[in-house]
Amino acid sequence: MNIAVLGTGSVGQALAGRLAGLGHQVVMGTRDVAATLTRTTPDGWGNPAIGTWAAANPQIKLVTYAEAAAFSDGIIVHAMNGHAAIDALHQAGEANLAGKILIDITNPLDFSKGFPPSLFVSNTDSLGEQIQAAFPALKVVKSLNTMSNPIMINPAAVPGDHTVFVNGNDADAKVAVAELLKSFGWTDANIFDLGDITASRGVEMVLPLWVRIYGKTQTPFFNFNINFAPKG
Amino acid sequence: MNIAVLGTGSVGQALAGRLAGLGHQVVMGTRDVAATLTRTTPDGWGNPAIGTWAAANPQIKLVTYAEAAAFSDGIIVHAMNGHAAIDALHQAGEANLAGKILIDITNPLDFSKGFPPSLFVSNTDSLGEQIQAAFPALKVVKSLNTMSNPIMINPAAVPGDHTVFVNGNDADAKVAVAELLKSFGWTDANIFDLGDITASRGVEMVLPLWVRIYGKTQTPFFNFNINFAPKG
Repeated sequence: MNIAVLGTGSVGQALAGRLAGLGHQVVMGTRDVAATLTRTTPDGWGNPAIGTWAAANPQIKLVTYAEAAAFSDGIIVHAMNGHAAIDALHQAGEANLAGKILIDITNPLDFSKGFPPSLFVSNTDSLGEQIQAAFPALKVVKSLNTMSNPIMINPAAVPGDHTVFVNGNDADAKVAVAELLKSFGWTDANIFDLGDITASRGVEMVLPLWVRIYGKTQTPFFNFNINFAPKG
Repeated sequence: MNIAVLGTGSVGQALAGRLAGLGHQVVMGTRDVAATLTRTTPDGWGNPAIGTWAAANPQIKLVTYAEAAAFSDGIIVHAMNGHAAIDALHQAGEANLAGKILIDITNPLDFSKGFPPSLFVSNTDSLGEQIQAAFPALKVVKSLNTMSNPIMINPAAVPGDHTVFVNGNDADAKVAVAELLKSFGWTDANIFDLGDITASRGVEMVLPLWVRIYGKTQTPFFNFNINFAPKG
């Protein structure tokens, strides 16, 4: 497939690299290609800056949000900072988005008061819902936002069963996203369909727990599993 | 120990029954003892009404909130509806609470707009924090609020490893709560200390995910586990 990844941070890099490795044609969308390519200072986690990463991954071209969305033949991965998420889609342009599937990994994290972050939308609304409401012709499927990026693209990075949630209004889009997740190594048993796009509230509101667990353990190499009792 | 359980719903019944079964002296606190004892209609889940339950459990006396808190020689279990949580503690009386440990199982669930509920406090505050702020001499330990009551008192109701969180400002109180959890069958490996009382935001904000999972599966017999990668 021709897949667009919006966002050039560590999540975008992980997804773009994994998708290219699976044989897809992948472009990364960014606000200002030239400016993005000048970045060479690793982030606080030791992840390479996008300029460094792009040089090492020449098969993945950096383009504008609009070019990226136009390039996609069906799937767009939204791997941006939550604050910029909706604006980037406006820049991508409704015509380039319409009818396509958006895998929404964004989280409405507000670090303006430091760590741990709060959420800038939650409880009675969610970023996933705001994106869907702003772009009704886009098929938004929230997924992968409840874990760190090494686990998103390689569930075997954590032992045993653990869960990836999907939710959205379009059943076929959720099936297509589940297929992509399975190509990353996720199994049907561990892909949990939470329902429509309003379930984004649930998966986004788990972030405050995620960051507390991270704060205590100082490792992002964990994921949530749901253990069910056997059916009686 | 002499333990008070505040709240007479299914969570209070489960905790009171389990604690009495472990040999503790247990009382249940309620607003109006005589009125509470007249209730005999089971709830929507088929749990017995408190009047029926009390008749079947004569060793557990129903008393007022103040009498219950005074009876406790160190531990009070807060198993009430979130809306009534702080008012019940005011009725219990600061003098009866001071220096004691409150195991806070309450959730700030707002069902005023139906299912799924929202939270009436979240994100930058939590019910656990509000209780601690209102009663500074109480040692509030948030715990057990992320699962259904059969699992709280019997973790073996769900197979494998799964997690019970504890958080609060008093380290010794958390140790005492962990000991009580272990008497229910929880293991050290599955008791996760999330930090101070502000971590209540994280564990209360997981409820919207819990209710979505419940809504999809129609079973309360599940719990979250955190799967960690082995330390590298």
